[in-house]
Amino acid sequence: MFHCFYNNQIKNTSETLIPVNDLGLFRGYGLFDFFRTYNGIPFQWDWYWARFCNSAEKLGLVIPFAESQVKEAVAEMIDLCPEKECSFRFVLTGGVTLDGMTSTNPSFFILSEKISEVADLIYAKGIKVETREYIRDMPEIKSTDYKFLLQIMPDLKKNKSTDVLFVKEGWISELSRSNIFVVSEDKIITPKKNILKGITRKTVIEQLTSDFEVQERDLTIEEVLNAKEVFTTSSTKKVLSISQIDDHIIGDGQAGPVSQLLLDRFNSLVQNWKG
Amino acid sequence: MFHCFYNNQIKNTSETLIPVNDLGLFRGYGLFDFFRTYNGIPFQWDWYWARFCNSAEKLGLVIPFAESQVKEAVAEMIDLCPEKECSFRFVLTGGVTLDGMTSTNPSFFILSEKISEVADLIYAKGIKVETREYIRDMPEIKSTDYKFLLQIMPDLKKNKSTDVLFVKEGWISELSRSNIFVVSEDKIITPKKNILKGITRKTVIEQLTSDFEVQERDLTIEEVLNAKEVFTTSSTKKVLSISQIDDHIIGDGQAGPVSQLLLDRFNSLVQNWKG
Repeated sequence: MFHCFYNNQIKNTSETLIPVNDLGLFRGYGLFDFFRTYNGIPFQWDWYWARFCNSAEKLGLVIPFAESQVKEAVAEMIDLCPEKECSFRFVLTGGVTLDGMTSTNPSFFILSEKISEVADLIYAKGIKVETREYIRDMPEIKSTDYKFLLQIMPDLKKNKSTDVLFVKEGWISELSRSNIFVVSEDKIITPKKNILKGITRKTVIEQLTSDFEVQERDLTIEEVLNAKEVFTTSSTKKVLSISQIDDHIIGDGQAGPVSQLLLDRFNSLVQNWKG
Repeated sequence: MFHCFYNNQIKNTSETLIPVNDLGLFRGYGLFDFFRTYNGIPFQWDWYWARFCNSAEKLGLVIPFAESQVKEAVAEMIDLCPEKECSFRFVLTGGVTLDGMTSTNPSFFILSEKISEVADLIYAKGIKVETREYIRDMPEIKSTDYKFLLQIMPDLKKNKSTDVLFVKEGWISELSRSNIFVVSEDKIITPKKNILKGITRKTVIEQLTSDFEVQERDLTIEEVLNAKEVFTTSSTKKVLSISQIDDHIIGDGQAGPVSQLLLDRFNSLVQNWKG
């Protein structure tokens, strides 16, 4: 059983009920963040917390608890967690509204959740993604807005695609819930604009690639298709190779050496994670 | 006290609680519609219902009740309503999710709400709106996505603006929750693309302007600023003059004669509304 912190109480998630008239539900006025533990310790807490605060500030929402209070609730939920590791979802919304538009108190939820690990076979083979002409609305904010993804999910499933790569007028930005990197002529390149700046992306750039030249810059879809390797990074995917984009096979259609090296380095980093 | 229909039950809205892990809250995967009664009868039911079905289909959500069942619930809620007239909000979401991404059963809520009427003084004076470089994501769907509006609400309030007019690369589309019309050289012109097609917009075009030339076409912001009159239409605003856009005064800064004529015609139509 996993748990939800809401209104200063920790309950089983399945027993957590909230008022129907929340601006998160009525008006999509909400944001979230999502991280996991390694060795029972939140991974990159400072970076996730800073991003959560940044999203809140940009969306005009005040987090109704101090960082220390949130940390305390998370620690308590880790103790209650039925598994060795778990992930956490923070959700912050505009709160309960009486007129469908305004509220005075944001709602804040912390949920512990089961981790779904990517299988080794998938790390070895890489994933297929498909492109869509789209750019996330307010991409630098981790808003709750995933309606585009959820609407195309049946198509992705039908096409055996794991995810979608957003392309706008020839320029790529990100996958629906993760960042993208390409390996090209011994450089590692990743978009800088119109993306949510991922914490795994930051980990890769700042802590795992000191022996590579890393460029943050605009990338065309052609450059991606012609890359030696393409990979994606996220809290749940870590460093995961992309071996197919639409009908185009990247490299030899398997995880490339750079992705595998960075995944190994990532795994070493988290294995010894002490916070 | 107003009410909410959920899980085949009608309760006071303040007593209606829902599971926290709804995709409407977690992933902004939701849509709605909003209409009101005149003479205790839903206004333009067929058109609103058709639009609600269209939004649901486009977002890939199945409405879990037949039209007749929904009509019955609405009739019951009208009987329970403490006031002569009320408005209704239908909300349809992806439903409860266990993995944060998928669900099998959409959630459907019907809420009766208090109507907030526009004061006569405001109809006479018109409203001030301000422009923003923005276009709604999936504008033809009445999704719950109003995060952009809610984020800029404090600015609108500070600037004494009633609403925001979306402009993208010089082309206007709509206000945050209503359509826009301009009166220019005895023609009435309204955008056709990148908008939610309002039911009041449709009422004006199809039932109130047979003696006018009405054009549905692209409009630049310059054309709007230079118009003799500008007005907006919505379920709650009916036909409401826009007398100021940013620092620019439209016409003589009061409600123009065409807006007033169409508001009179609209009021006559709804006064005798029998469904």
